[in-house]
Amino acid sequence: MDRRKLLTAAGLGLGAAALAGCKEEAAPAAGAADQAPPVQRFRWKMVTSWPENFPGLGTTAQHFADTVARLSNGRLSIQVFAAGALVPALEVFDAVSSGTAEMGHSAAYYWKGKSATAPFFTAVPFGLNAQEMNAWLYEGGGLALWQKAYESLGVLPLPCGNTGVQMAGWFNKEINSLDDLQGLKIRMPGFGGEVLSRAGATTVNLPGSEIFTSLQTGVIDATDWVSPYNDLAFGLYQAAKYYYYPGWQEPCAVLELTINQQKLAELPADLQDIVKVAARATNQAMLDEYTKRNAEALDTLVNEHGVQLRRLPDAVLERLRDISLDVLEETAAANPLNREVWDSMQAFRGKVNAWHAISESAMYALRD
Amino acid sequence: MDRRKLLTAAGLGLGAAALAGCKEEAAPAAGAADQAPPVQRFRWKMVTSWPENFPGLGTTAQHFADTVARLSNGRLSIQVFAAGALVPALEVFDAVSSGTAEMGHSAAYYWKGKSATAPFFTAVPFGLNAQEMNAWLYEGGGLALWQKAYESLGVLPLPCGNTGVQMAGWFNKEINSLDDLQGLKIRMPGFGGEVLSRAGATTVNLPGSEIFTSLQTGVIDATDWVSPYNDLAFGLYQAAKYYYYPGWQEPCAVLELTINQQKLAELPADLQDIVKVAARATNQAMLDEYTKRNAEALDTLVNEHGVQLRRLPDAVLERLRDISLDVLEETAAANPLNREVWDSMQAFRGKVNAWHAISESAMYALRD
Repeated sequence: MDRRKLLTAAGLGLGAAALAGCKEEAAPAAGAADQAPPVQRFRWKMVTSWPENFPGLGTTAQHFADTVARLSNGRLSIQVFAAGALVPALEVFDAVSSGTAEMGHSAAYYWKGKSATAPFFTAVPFGLNAQEMNAWLYEGGGLALWQKAYESLGVLPLPCGNTGVQMAGWFNKEINSLDDLQGLKIRMPGFGGEVLSRAGATTVNLPGSEIFTSLQTGVIDATDWVSPYNDLAFGLYQAAKYYYYPGWQEPCAVLELTINQQKLAELPADLQDIVKVAARATNQAMLDEYTKRNAEALDTLVNEHGVQLRRLPDAVLERLRDISLDVLEETAAANPLNREVWDSMQAFRGKVNAWHAISESAMYALRD
Repeated sequence: MDRRKLLTAAGLGLGAAALAGCKEEAAPAAGAADQAPPVQRFRWKMVTSWPENFPGLGTTAQHFADTVARLSNGRLSIQVFAAGALVPALEVFDAVSSGTAEMGHSAAYYWKGKSATAPFFTAVPFGLNAQEMNAWLYEGGGLALWQKAYESLGVLPLPCGNTGVQMAGWFNKEINSLDDLQGLKIRMPGFGGEVLSRAGATTVNLPGSEIFTSLQTGVIDATDWVSPYNDLAFGLYQAAKYYYYPGWQEPCAVLELTINQQKLAELPADLQDIVKVAARATNQAMLDEYTKRNAEALDTLVNEHGVQLRRLPDAVLERLRDISLDVLEETAAANPLNREVWDSMQAFRGKVNAWHAISESAMYALRD
């Protein structure tokens, strides 16, 4: 066997695989060319909705890919693509469904047009926090329902990262009563935006890249984004006076790993398990990172940049909660699966609320 | 090659390995006997402090072992031993340190006699909850300090499970003021027991197996245990009138995976990573399970068994908090590493308290 030719061919194979996302067999060890069982290697592509190495989101996608590479000893390598590099940010789901990419990293609430059930799996206003969402997904039947929602689309979803509780957003007008919401021009997507519209605000949707300028020039009066870690990096404190809490619209936000079902089924069983367990470990890793970095960034925002924290008034929060329940009930009524998901979540919530009232919540209350 | 002899030898090898915990090489595939690179297989023993398949604790150890077996495609198989099967519950650390077992699953606060720093890594009264502890360990430098504490003992620790917030315990006397703590006979180990002793209680230490009878016969007036999931299974509601919260003494409890450093270093890099990532995924899995099952068990205790929930009075909690800080400061002063750990934890706590006050805590408060 001509060793030079073999290496050259392998080199070309790698290049082609990176573009096409195919599986290949490693060159057999020298001296065992005919007998050694070939090691199957897979090169996959992961498309994401995040800019290149975007802190917390893009880096979490890369953390997952690195974990899989290490656990599989390189048998499954995943190349991570930033938004726009292979497909636009909001075409991640389609790319995975069609097999253009084997995997995606994004958030379920972007796919409302594909599955009316999807938004429940990212965040629900006044709903479950990260600890509760993880428990509902893995122990309370939530993950099975999520997978059922995408089954006919050929996609398997897994939770793969969580921001924890977000902030209510950056405002250039104070919110002292419900009146202050009337006509307020605010950027907010998802369930939260719908709720604010019904409360009288003028909700607009802007991509992340336009938020800063729109806020600074007064095109909008307020915006949500994420929480201190991402908001500090975005410089939003330079464009707004007040930083409002709590993030009623997203008590947590689940990041979503999507996997093409057929491609997954082609992997050996151990690699399938590596993907699933790496996703679960990454899910925790992102929350750990956000907990640490949000705490530090809040300290920087308040103590170095003089950001003024404001709590939304109780009357405003109560009204937003009532409207949220209306919106969620209407969403639940849209089809039988939505009904099943919302009922499951509500039943879980009732019991976990009672437990956390005397445990997590009671301990937090002791700190004040 | 005599295939029958080979299989017999392999059979004996397996049996011997199960006792001795050695590594072995799989029989090569037929027809490739001389050339195929042998697959290294490792059979490890994990000793634990839990009864066989004890709900939540023993099952978490088994969950970890099963995960490693699947991810490694059987190259690393771990046999889980209940307390007493190979070594007694409180000799887990020694067994791992000496190499009698490659791994252990237990809790760090049992090893105060081996490392004065160990108790900080399970639970600190009025301290970090599960989400915060995970963030401190993995992102705030805590895990590096934990590993430093055991380094000279040849043991590498990793978090591998968390109960979340516990309950204050089961009481046959109501606690309405500090006076009610005087002379109260209560079973409570760890920092919590020391704090209650200083508050005037008579603290006794009893193994789990003696708690029920001691409480029922009046040998003790009260006891801690874990939280609704484990407490319901233990039947403690049949032996005590009141179920007190919040679990000031353990705002979370970290389960500990210990690994013999030398044995770990003998594993190929991918198996070392599989162990570490499986531990992190298992860490989340146990919290998910406890969150779900505590919520259900609390519902059963209150609505089926008529258990009376009681909150410890503010004056009692304030006094216990003051004493806790004294105990922790004294523990910190014992040696430079304790000082370093406590300072690190306190610095982290200051910032994360401020963040969680406007996020997690603020969202919990909205529910009431």
